Amino acid sequence: MAKKNRVTVWGENVHERKNPIVRQIYPDGIHACIAAGLKEDRILQVRTATLQEPQHGLTKSVLAETDVLVWWGHAAHGQVRDAVVQRVLQRIWQGMGFIALHSSHYSKIFKRLMGTTGSLTWREAAERERLWVCNPGHPIARGIDKCFEIENTEMYGEPFAIPTPDEIVFISWFEGGEIFRSGCTWKRGNGKIFYFRPGHEAYPIYYHPVVRQVLRNAVHWAAPEGQKWIDSCPKISLDRTREKLIAKGPKLHKAGEKGFR
Amino acid sequence: MAKKNRVTVWGENVHERKNPIVRQIYPDGIHACIAAGLKEDRILQVRTATLQEPQHGLTKSVLAETDVLVWWGHAAHGQVRDAVVQRVLQRIWQGMGFIALHSSHYSKIFKRLMGTTGSLTWREAAERERLWVCNPGHPIARGIDKCFEIENTEMYGEPFAIPTPDEIVFISWFEGGEIFRSGCTWKRGNGKIFYFRPGHEAYPIYYHPVVRQVLRNAVHWAAPEGQKWIDSCPKISLDRTREKLIAKGPKLHKAGEKGFR
Amino acid sequence: MAKKNRVTVWGENVHERKNPIVRQIYPDGIHACIAAGLKEDRILQVRTATLQEPQHGLTKSVLAETDVLVWWGHAAHGQVRDAVVQRVLQRIWQGMGFIALHSSHYSKIFKRLMGTTGSLTWREAAERERLWVCNPGHPIARGIDKCFEIENTEMYGEPFAIPTPDEIVFISWFEGGEIFRSGCTWKRGNGKIFYFRPGHEAYPIYYHPVVRQVLRNAVHWAAPEGQKWIDSCPKISLDRTREKLIAKGPKLHKAGEKGFR
Amino acid sequence: MAKKNRVTVWGENVHERKNPIVRQIYPDGIHACIAAGLKEDRILQVRTATLQEPQHGLTKSVLAETDVLVWWGHAAHGQVRDAVVQRVLQRIWQGMGFIALHSSHYSKIFKRLMGTTGSLTWREAAERERLWVCNPGHPIARGIDKCFEIENTEMYGEPFAIPTPDEIVFISWFEGGEIFRSGCTWKRGNGKIFYFRPGHEAYPIYYHPVVRQVLRNAVHWAAPEGQKWIDSCPKISLDRTREKLIAKGPKLHKAGEKGFR
Repeated sequence: MAKKNRVTVWGENVHERKNPIVRQIYPDGIHACIAAGLKEDRILQVRTATLQEPQHGLTKSVLAETDVLVWWGHAAHGQVRDAVVQRVLQRIWQGMGFIALHSSHYSKIFKRLMGTTGSLTWREAAERERLWVCNPGHPIARGIDKCFEIENTEMYGEPFAIPTPDEIVFISWFEGGEIFRSGCTWKRGNGKIFYFRPGHEAYPIYYHPVVRQVLRNAVHWAAPEGQKWIDSCPKISLDRTREKLIAKGPKLHKAGEKGFR
Repeated sequence: MAKKNRVTVWGENVHERKNPIVRQIYPDGIHACIAAGLKEDRILQVRTATLQEPQHGLTKSVLAETDVLVWWGHAAHGQVRDAVVQRVLQRIWQGMGFIALHSSHYSKIFKRLMGTTGSLTWREAAERERLWVCNPGHPIARGIDKCFEIENTEMYGEPFAIPTPDEIVFISWFEGGEIFRSGCTWKRGNGKIFYFRPGHEAYPIYYHPVVRQVLRNAVHWAAPEGQKWIDSCPKISLDRTREKLIAKGPKLHKAGEKGFR
Repeated sequence: MAKKNRVTVWGENVHERKNPIVRQIYPDGIHACIAAGLKEDRILQVRTATLQEPQHGLTKSVLAETDVLVWWGHAAHGQVRDAVVQRVLQRIWQGMGFIALHSSHYSKIFKRLMGTTGSLTWREAAERERLWVCNPGHPIARGIDKCFEIENTEMYGEPFAIPTPDEIVFISWFEGGEIFRSGCTWKRGNGKIFYFRPGHEAYPIYYHPVVRQVLRNAVHWAAPEGQKWIDSCPKISLDRTREKLIAKGPKLHKAGEKGFR
Repeated sequence: MAKKNRVTVWGENVHERKNPIVRQIYPDGIHACIAAGLKEDRILQVRTATLQEPQHGLTKSVLAETDVLVWWGHAAHGQVRDAVVQRVLQRIWQGMGFIALHSSHYSKIFKRLMGTTGSLTWREAAERERLWVCNPGHPIARGIDKCFEIENTEMYGEPFAIPTPDEIVFISWFEGGEIFRSGCTWKRGNGKIFYFRPGHEAYPIYYHPVVRQVLRNAVHWAAPEGQKWIDSCPKISLDRTREKLIAKGPKLHKAGEKGFR
């Protein structure tokens, strides 16, 4: 409950510098607004990182000190370097939580974790969205009533090309007639993953108090709970074998040889 | 039941050409032996493809005519070209079944579908393995009794770095004291995926009648059942919107603009 | 594909005899209308059974000859005898499919299979419902476009007290602002289970061509695919033990004694 | 982490009073030994209850003050009164954790939560069991190495008639050649459920330090994390409807009428 989880909020920081509508809503960048919402919980240690920083701000040491990574990307998914993607994936498999926001359904990291395309349908008409809690006892829904509304939102519709979620926390209703699985969880290696739909740069969604509450809840939920899972593929030699075993038959691998990867 | 499913068995065909032990067991290649086992079911239309062929034998037209792709790789995962990997993934998301065998836990395709590392522990001592049926009514276990044995096998042990399977059909017991989730299913997009552990090039595992039975069952199970799922991310214009909707607010996307990918 | 699946449609047949609105819509009973929709597929062998028949029409021999049981109940859940409930459960565990319709979320059988309360929210205002396909390749969605509408429906809202479904095929949008997981699958023992929300006795929902299509698809999907799973808890004697084993230690159970149940 | 979770350990307390072997190992009852293991964590508030007490020691107020209920039963499942079963289920659905031990796979409560028969195979030969951690980052496996052994154990074998677990934490290897899904989790309503296989009254299993560690971990994991989920099925009246809605069509339910249950 009272763990000082360390959060890094990553933002691509592109629209907020180029598009006057977005700059007006998020003058310090979307990542800064998300970070401000998280900082309402004094227990959390929040920093930000952006695409434009060296190594996108996600150096080995930053990631080593991050319990949960919150990801905002939209226009510049393709500019995220593969080496950074790989480094982030490694940390997720070890146990770092990962929260993918809105258009990050098409980020390289999210697609790699899901193994699917992440496709969906969409419409930008500032319509009303209502998110219903499907899983009232889930820690990510803590303190949230049956549903909450976002008056102006971009629509995302089904089918959402994701693997069956481990849990669905929220499903959205849209004024224009669609529905969407808006809050979903998965686990990959030791890392807990949460996809949260709300958020569009043309509307002030990350100022919404319930959206901020969900993000704080999600960060606490996604923090590592157990030991690290180191990715290794060890050969178990006969002397480390639990039952008495006499090796038989031919061998492909020579003694001491490592396996193929 | 009686569907003429079209199967392509892919083999990297490396060890069987270089290693005399493997060549003796599988003189025509492991892929040919697997294909022979599938052909015991006359209904199946079976072809093979290998790493050494142009485009690894997996051209667009071959994949278009493949309902289920069976994958054997071990030493040469890194030589599989990314363009072919991407083409195979696209077909899986559309609905082609994919069966990953043994050391293919480390193939590029399997790791991309899982979103995890695929790591495990292993030992090559020709020990005994016994596969227990955990899900007796599953079509992949059809005709198989409570368990079956492979007298000489390579051991794979837990933890197996995979997402929670949708279903576990087999769990293995090993003479040396380990266990392993040996038959697991997932779905990615419309594609049904089965991982099956048995198979090692130094032992005649793909001649084993029950292993062959499992593979035939799995091919029938993995064949597409419904319509194709085309990966697209369409913008829903106001005139195609189901409920009457009046667009409000500012816009990020200009009229007619496509979304970011 | 072309399996002659045998279907029994069970209806409690209460409102249709007492309530003039319902009788006018379903003069032969809701079960007869559902059965008529299934019979549009000539391959299916369809019969009906009702609460008022001896043993509710679900004798041992009827169940033995049933591949899929479709269940409609609403006002009389409490009148279904526990012995019949138990007999139906046994057949589901063996492999009979079970399709629970609409208000059957509160039937004894569905609650027993789920292990939850089945609670939800509801409103009867003849509002519009739109069911979206979340899983376009699923056999239950075969032939169905992105969504379909029911012009007048009773609303069911979340939270729906069910275990995480194995698969979600449909999610509903309601005119009044709610959403609902309307098409969900699970497996219990060997039995495949589908919950399908549409259906209210005051509206002609089971005449809707897409609703009928879903029901036909669901019956084909739910039919048994493998061998029977007999519920037994056998003691494995030493002479039937797979590995050589010498019994040690004290014993709670005497030789030949059966286990506790 | 530091939550003072309140645990009630329930034991049927039958064999330990009648069978001299069991009495010698567990002179104060199995429940007392389990409770002693939990009390090694000073944070936990542990009490016990037994079959022989009025209402089996599980009064409404005891359950209201219980965060996690640990259940041991074997010979007397049938003597547990249905009213108590129902009361326990209600509390689980609200959010109380439930840990079912060993032979409790056949307890009324576990079978009701699973919706399956709970059947398995078994052998009492004091053989060796080795439990492998399949999910190294799971909080229930915290502090536990790759595997741990129990030198003398009763065997349980697959198929285990349970719904697909949400998570598998442990899989067992047995000397006689079987395997078993020994540590599994599910959720029902708000209640978190853990089944843990080890434990047999003829062996001192609940003195084993790693078994005790698992039980302490499991109790922390199973404690409620969010708000209560009250089982109710409210009718949403038009004035409480989120979107403007005009009621149409005929009605089955009269104004103010409650729904059927």
